[in-house]
Amino acid sequence: MLRAFGDESLIAAALRFEAALARASAAEGLASPAAAAAVSRACAAFEADISELAQEAAHAGTLAIPLVRRLKALAARESPEAEALVHRGASSQDLADTALMLQARAGAALIRAEGGRLVRAAAGIARPHAATPMLGRTLLQPARPITLGLKAAGWMLGVAGGLRRFAREADQALVLQLGGAAGTMSGLKPGVAERMAQELGLRAAVVPWHARREALAGLAAALAILTGAVGKVARDVALMAEVGEAAEPAAAGRGGSSSMPGKRNPTGCQVALSAAIRAPGLCAGVIAGLPQEHERGLGGWQAEGPAVASLFELTHGALAAMAPVIEGLEIGEPAIARNLAAAGVGDDVGLSVELVRRALASLDDAPLSTP
Amino acid sequence: MLRAFGDESLIAAALRFEAALARASAAEGLASPAAAAAVSRACAAFEADISELAQEAAHAGTLAIPLVRRLKALAARESPEAEALVHRGASSQDLADTALMLQARAGAALIRAEGGRLVRAAAGIARPHAATPMLGRTLLQPARPITLGLKAAGWMLGVAGGLRRFAREADQALVLQLGGAAGTMSGLKPGVAERMAQELGLRAAVVPWHARREALAGLAAALAILTGAVGKVARDVALMAEVGEAAEPAAAGRGGSSSMPGKRNPTGCQVALSAAIRAPGLCAGVIAGLPQEHERGLGGWQAEGPAVASLFELTHGALAAMAPVIEGLEIGEPAIARNLAAAGVGDDVGLSVELVRRALASLDDAPLSTP
Amino acid sequence: MLRAFGDESLIAAALRFEAALARASAAEGLASPAAAAAVSRACAAFEADISELAQEAAHAGTLAIPLVRRLKALAARESPEAEALVHRGASSQDLADTALMLQARAGAALIRAEGGRLVRAAAGIARPHAATPMLGRTLLQPARPITLGLKAAGWMLGVAGGLRRFAREADQALVLQLGGAAGTMSGLKPGVAERMAQELGLRAAVVPWHARREALAGLAAALAILTGAVGKVARDVALMAEVGEAAEPAAAGRGGSSSMPGKRNPTGCQVALSAAIRAPGLCAGVIAGLPQEHERGLGGWQAEGPAVASLFELTHGALAAMAPVIEGLEIGEPAIARNLAAAGVGDDVGLSVELVRRALASLDDAPLSTP
Amino acid sequence: MLRAFGDESLIAAALRFEAALARASAAEGLASPAAAAAVSRACAAFEADISELAQEAAHAGTLAIPLVRRLKALAARESPEAEALVHRGASSQDLADTALMLQARAGAALIRAEGGRLVRAAAGIARPHAATPMLGRTLLQPARPITLGLKAAGWMLGVAGGLRRFAREADQALVLQLGGAAGTMSGLKPGVAERMAQELGLRAAVVPWHARREALAGLAAALAILTGAVGKVARDVALMAEVGEAAEPAAAGRGGSSSMPGKRNPTGCQVALSAAIRAPGLCAGVIAGLPQEHERGLGGWQAEGPAVASLFELTHGALAAMAPVIEGLEIGEPAIARNLAAAGVGDDVGLSVELVRRALASLDDAPLSTP
Repeated sequence: MLRAFGDESLIAAALRFEAALARASAAEGLASPAAAAAVSRACAAFEADISELAQEAAHAGTLAIPLVRRLKALAARESPEAEALVHRGASSQDLADTALMLQARAGAALIRAEGGRLVRAAAGIARPHAATPMLGRTLLQPARPITLGLKAAGWMLGVAGGLRRFAREADQALVLQLGGAAGTMSGLKPGVAERMAQELGLRAAVVPWHARREALAGLAAALAILTGAVGKVARDVALMAEVGEAAEPAAAGRGGSSSMPGKRNPTGCQVALSAAIRAPGLCAGVIAGLPQEHERGLGGWQAEGPAVASLFELTHGALAAMAPVIEGLEIGEPAIARNLAAAGVGDDVGLSVELVRRALASLDDAPLSTP
Repeated sequence: MLRAFGDESLIAAALRFEAALARASAAEGLASPAAAAAVSRACAAFEADISELAQEAAHAGTLAIPLVRRLKALAARESPEAEALVHRGASSQDLADTALMLQARAGAALIRAEGGRLVRAAAGIARPHAATPMLGRTLLQPARPITLGLKAAGWMLGVAGGLRRFAREADQALVLQLGGAAGTMSGLKPGVAERMAQELGLRAAVVPWHARREALAGLAAALAILTGAVGKVARDVALMAEVGEAAEPAAAGRGGSSSMPGKRNPTGCQVALSAAIRAPGLCAGVIAGLPQEHERGLGGWQAEGPAVASLFELTHGALAAMAPVIEGLEIGEPAIARNLAAAGVGDDVGLSVELVRRALASLDDAPLSTP
Repeated sequence: MLRAFGDESLIAAALRFEAALARASAAEGLASPAAAAAVSRACAAFEADISELAQEAAHAGTLAIPLVRRLKALAARESPEAEALVHRGASSQDLADTALMLQARAGAALIRAEGGRLVRAAAGIARPHAATPMLGRTLLQPARPITLGLKAAGWMLGVAGGLRRFAREADQALVLQLGGAAGTMSGLKPGVAERMAQELGLRAAVVPWHARREALAGLAAALAILTGAVGKVARDVALMAEVGEAAEPAAAGRGGSSSMPGKRNPTGCQVALSAAIRAPGLCAGVIAGLPQEHERGLGGWQAEGPAVASLFELTHGALAAMAPVIEGLEIGEPAIARNLAAAGVGDDVGLSVELVRRALASLDDAPLSTP
Repeated sequence: MLRAFGDESLIAAALRFEAALARASAAEGLASPAAAAAVSRACAAFEADISELAQEAAHAGTLAIPLVRRLKALAARESPEAEALVHRGASSQDLADTALMLQARAGAALIRAEGGRLVRAAAGIARPHAATPMLGRTLLQPARPITLGLKAAGWMLGVAGGLRRFAREADQALVLQLGGAAGTMSGLKPGVAERMAQELGLRAAVVPWHARREALAGLAAALAILTGAVGKVARDVALMAEVGEAAEPAAAGRGGSSSMPGKRNPTGCQVALSAAIRAPGLCAGVIAGLPQEHERGLGGWQAEGPAVASLFELTHGALAAMAPVIEGLEIGEPAIARNLAAAGVGDDVGLSVELVRRALASLDDAPLSTP
């Protein structure tokens, strides 16, 4: 995920945007096929010292300025027409937004993969333990019996619900941006955006969304909420570990203590809980930026990129930390039985078995990746 | 909206929950029809000093304790069986969560109503002004021409997108809660929850969601994002008012200044922008509470109710403030023309007219209130 | 605290502002003593239907408009000069900000009182239990022995640190606001503000702070952080209660369960943890409003009042919930000893006793209420 | 600032911690001078593939594990006693917290430097323009005249207030951490911490603060608030730029537009406003982590480091962007005069000149860098 949102992938995405723009312009009759091919070649040939480019971008206030300048220089070697075609009709924000969307699309695939793993891992506990009685606890006090399967089914449904929300929001948010200087698509045709969207695997916008960022905020919120659902799993596992009912699987070099060599720390849970503490504030920052000024905000939209990248990293980190924890969870059945017996709350697990059955069935009914 | 989330409506919702529980229990053969009818009568006869009840609830840590005690006392006058039936199988959280959902359902109707008004009002500017040229501004600097209609279409799509997200999340979140002490539905039958959901106009849960709160967090996020989309409208209107391009409609007793009698302040924009500053932090608080402990969290879920109520109030307040502002917006066409001319950026509005057409058409295609 | 920030106290504070302004204006020779006395009498005689006034204030966008109108009507009965003197030189924001400061000053006294109680209560555990060994836990896993006194000393120092920050920030923030329409004190003299500050028990500002709100944000942050420090105490107590090492003192009607009559829930901890989840987002909202526009922001400063009031309520609620919990904490010494022994980590408590001594001494050195 | 919080400086800080620990242990008679010298040499000789070390740290859940292992291997070449002395008495958190404090101390110097620059730059406008009349604006509407100097004095006082809070909080927060596995300083002496603090330029703690993080939260809040105060300057400058009253100084390669070559964007303001949108949520995340579990939290404290680093970067970035903007601000005196005249609000600037004098004098009285 660090790679998906790294500088290299950003530049690659920016170049894909520029090449697609040139090709679509040609296909719509706004440029010659030769010029478009030349721009494509320039994009393919583009090489840059990434840290130098990043510094220039920070200075200019946008990546587009130094990148387009370099690209134009490359295209100029081919023809003046090619040079003129580079970035024609587009704004810095078109490039920045679309590149972010391409990164987000790559990130979304990673989220889906690790998320699916965690859901399946939780199902893998819920199914065999549907009837394994354990102590239910409310407000951190002993309550009534539940089953281990019911607890795991809750984890599963929570993460699955988070993944479905993420799929819905990604479906809304992963949209090409192409509006030009003020969002009027001046000098372009609707078909340019449609062709570009098609080529880049994004949706075409009804109207450029440069100053209308609620779909991106929805994506940020979905990531933060998904992280919270993973944090719920981590909280439970850590608390179970405290009383011997579970332990994270042993992994070489993980979970140790620099002062107490024999200790096994719930490091996966730590990663997920830390992410769940950080994510809400990042999400709030994106939502806070929504009331943007006129046709392109000052500060609001520039705040989104780093926050969205951090959210993808945190969510993915939490999922990737907890998936192996739940896959390999060491279940302390003796402690589970002992703690239940010690609480003296009987053994009536109510409809737990039926509820687990329903939870598993609901998962079969609605795939995680469809919006 | 203050009424929808007030103490009176909370108690009414709690009583509807208790009555529905008794009736559904009887319908599923878990109680006699006579006892259920007696509980229904007790609910109907319930009268309480609201501030006294609120104080007892604060002391007890939950409304259920004092309310159920009073209700049992009322039912006891009918029969011991009726007294025993009150709240049977339910937990404090079942009552609190379901009551919150009933309040949220009432609140959602108000959001939809004001939201629809604002969307229609924006469309009412977009349509006639699709071709009215005005200065587009990016980063608070003059950019290229747009049309007033395109700007209004952006408002419309932003609020519409926010309303659609809200409809989707409400569809997911407005779910009956019935799990009992530890969420196993001990002593109940699945049919009880299904009948109650039917009666109360909520969805039935696959599995009780007492410790799985991501749908509620999704609703909170949708409200905050919708508020941000309204804040975008307010920001633009306030900035247009600064340069004479728009003014809030005059309203008696509104927008005045205690020190400058002639001033007309953008009070509606102020309400919406203030809401847009407050909402993200409230939403973050709800998401931060997701990693709840075991079968009922300590602190996390108790933090949700006030935040969700505040979010409904802020979102509704923002919509209700901006709907009349946009409906009656005084458009300063001379200033719009003057400012555009002064900027010297020509008059090429690109595809603005076509984009407005598409925006309006997209609204016809997808109603705001379906998830 | 609800009373300190209620509508009645707001109106009382607003009237104190208006009366002090009239008197100070007279003392500085800007009005006749007779007119000032008449305005004072009008303020004393002011009576209003509070809900009606609140509604008009909401409509007008500020309390000042309807309140000043009523006050002028009262003063007009005395003399035209008195009517003219009402609110002269002041803006709506002067009134709103100063009234908030007066409410905050009353709130600060409550915070100090409950905070001091909690610190003393923690010291009351730290002192006698300085050498009582117990299991230390890190990352929710058994670690090395500590002493109960050392744990309680940590609570004490955390809350004391939070109270000292609050005292520092209150010292900076509780400042009179008097700037007039644009903050130039037009028509006033510096002495007016100094006399008013003196009378109202606030500091005089170097320069009106109407558009410079960082001190208020500092106060909000101090409240949120103090709530977090109380939340730390609550988290530990709740986790100790889980393993029998502590229990909240029994209180009639508190901590019960509507479904499990015998249960004793950590209700005080719940209140504090819930507050600690809600407070950070409220604080973020206040900080987010800092970049205000020109001489009076649109939205940013209007967002502060409700958030600051909520923060005072949450912080006070958390302190008032935990002070009696720690004062009456039922310490489970047998479980403490048993859990330590079971962990098999020896009994070396290091410098715990000396550290507790130092912690208690540090408290004597630096009072909690001085900035 | 990126360097101050980079991986290299983190490792350097960690090595300084380890060397200081060994030397202080020897000075207090807990180790031989020879062993301490050997550990010092090992720290000096330490070389690592930083990305490899970072990866191992991520896997282990803490930097201490792989770093201490490598350091022990180096020390082992000198003597078994030296190997045993490495990290003796310390925990992973001691190392992580103290290293963060050393990074924060370096960061604080950068904040002070750029902050002082911005304050001086604002004073450099306030002084000569104390009496330059301009239009004051409230709620984004024309209000009464102010002076440009009074506006700049407000910027100056806001940033100065933010810097003073930061200085106070840094004074409280920049404290050595040394508590060992559970915070009891087992196997150590108080003098070890005192000597280390002395050597490393940090304060010694009364009691280890491993589970008591409110001072760090105070530092985070101070950074966010300072960023907000800088954002206020940026907001005003950007709005002034909109109406020709100011322009950011021209800088080669900065503020351009990829689609409109002649445009000059307020890029410095953009950086500051973007930071002011992101900072509050990061601060909220740190405060949210305060209720940490027992002697070392799970998730809460691990969430702090990245957020605090981001806050230092954002605050420094905002200051470093706005200091040159204000130093070189192009003031549009004709537009200022024209806009004031057009508003028709007279020319009474009240006490503006006197208020500017007081503001400048207050700065001389209280240096920015003392707590």
